[in-house]
Amino acid sequence: MSERTGGRPAPGPLIIIGGHEDKEGERGILAEFAAAVGGGKVVLATIASEEPDEYVESYRRAFEGLPVGELVALHLDDRAETHSPEKLAAFDGARGVFFTGGDQLRISSQIGDTPVEQRIREIWQSGGVLAGTSAGASVMSDTMLVRGPGATSYRLGDVHMAPGLGLIRDVIIDQHFAERGRIGRLIGAVAHSPRVLGIGIDEDTAIIVEGRDFRVIGSGAVYVLDGEGVTRSNIGEAQAERALSIYDMRLHVLSAGDGFDLERRRLHEEPFTVSEIEQGLAERVS
Amino acid sequence: MSERTGGRPAPGPLIIIGGHEDKEGERGILAEFAAAVGGGKVVLATIASEEPDEYVESYRRAFEGLPVGELVALHLDDRAETHSPEKLAAFDGARGVFFTGGDQLRISSQIGDTPVEQRIREIWQSGGVLAGTSAGASVMSDTMLVRGPGATSYRLGDVHMAPGLGLIRDVIIDQHFAERGRIGRLIGAVAHSPRVLGIGIDEDTAIIVEGRDFRVIGSGAVYVLDGEGVTRSNIGEAQAERALSIYDMRLHVLSAGDGFDLERRRLHEEPFTVSEIEQGLAERVS
Repeated sequence: MSERTGGRPAPGPLIIIGGHEDKEGERGILAEFAAAVGGGKVVLATIASEEPDEYVESYRRAFEGLPVGELVALHLDDRAETHSPEKLAAFDGARGVFFTGGDQLRISSQIGDTPVEQRIREIWQSGGVLAGTSAGASVMSDTMLVRGPGATSYRLGDVHMAPGLGLIRDVIIDQHFAERGRIGRLIGAVAHSPRVLGIGIDEDTAIIVEGRDFRVIGSGAVYVLDGEGVTRSNIGEAQAERALSIYDMRLHVLSAGDGFDLERRRLHEEPFTVSEIEQGLAERVS
Repeated sequence: MSERTGGRPAPGPLIIIGGHEDKEGERGILAEFAAAVGGGKVVLATIASEEPDEYVESYRRAFEGLPVGELVALHLDDRAETHSPEKLAAFDGARGVFFTGGDQLRISSQIGDTPVEQRIREIWQSGGVLAGTSAGASVMSDTMLVRGPGATSYRLGDVHMAPGLGLIRDVIIDQHFAERGRIGRLIGAVAHSPRVLGIGIDEDTAIIVEGRDFRVIGSGAVYVLDGEGVTRSNIGEAQAERALSIYDMRLHVLSAGDGFDLERRRLHEEPFTVSEIEQGLAERVS
């Protein structure tokens, strides 16, 4: 995870979770986080929430029996606290930070450009693991979705975006994706600027980003919306509440085991599975 | 609508509605249906429902003041009734048939290959209008979606399909589309056979199909999922409940005024709108 390149450690992985990760059964995603942290200390950052205690209790239980070290909760009541030496001490020796759900604007507005953000980046840049679920997932990108209805198609003006933490560039992340019917709002977000790749992550599903690659883990799907080839859209038209038209979006649906190259915007090629080989043989025989 | 080609009338339009069309305000979709029927007699087919009376009352009110002629309700308790001269008399002189919602399997199983279906085809083939909303929309295609969960990504084995009425070929239609988070199941349906084009229609939104073209009306969006260019999917793998992977789907989102060519699978080219021209000028000036 922390391969050294020219003597300098590479940043650790980002584990970006679509919310509602399994906390009782196999806990595949949390186990993967624990393995990445390698038994080290973890800071559970409940900054996104106004009711941190429930999150702390829930994650203490969820991590029981998984190979993480000390689990330290960090909450902030206001931005001033980001300078508190006591709060900052939570990060001492930490090898992972896990952002819980809540409101992504609480994270970005409270810690953006503060010593807390600095400490988190230092942990990551020295090979530590940053994970975030739900709101904690959205905040990872440079531009984040902060509001927009689900279970409806995108109407011009519907979606609100804001700067995120910028840990992953040129993507915009949405979570609880299929469950809350959010493809409309992610299409709307990408329509604004097809430079950004839309990544919609289902519940109990995550992407593990290392460098400019990610792979998918968990039980659901990850949707990649690529607007590069879009030939027409009406996003520039002024009429609010008008339904969006957009043509020639490229859509990939990925699931556990799939890998994706964010630079080339292409799937990792993998060896054919046994069933594909059998199918190919069957076709040649028949 | 009923242009004669070589002395023979062309089939009338199909108006395929995503459910919950506006019945109280401007009633744009119902008004379009009424205009297409041209003041003629309409058969309101409540075959999909087990509680037809509510539909009849609701549509009687909804069509009040719109230029439709006589409105005759048709319900069938069982398949045997499709031979009843009394039931068949409902179609005499009708210029339109409107299928309400309910269960699409009730329509296809009760009227498929019966004199009722025959009469409906005759009306359509002589230039009459066939409309269907919700279940009445799904049943129009040759293969229809009959079951599959919303608000989740597609899992292998999730979706159930059955033969529909075959009034529109090589497409599969889904309705209540954004509202019920159905893109997952439509992706799954198209993954089975990219020969069929997936068409997902939002509530209060419709496509008007004439020949192999359609145009969009109503307040929502129409999603077109084209699997022709798909490079990989795991749909052939045997594991049930495994999330689907599929790459390089093409996705179009259409809204009111957009036209689509089902043969070429391409948007109709339209003259640029004023705002697009202005934008183009602004870019050249700046």
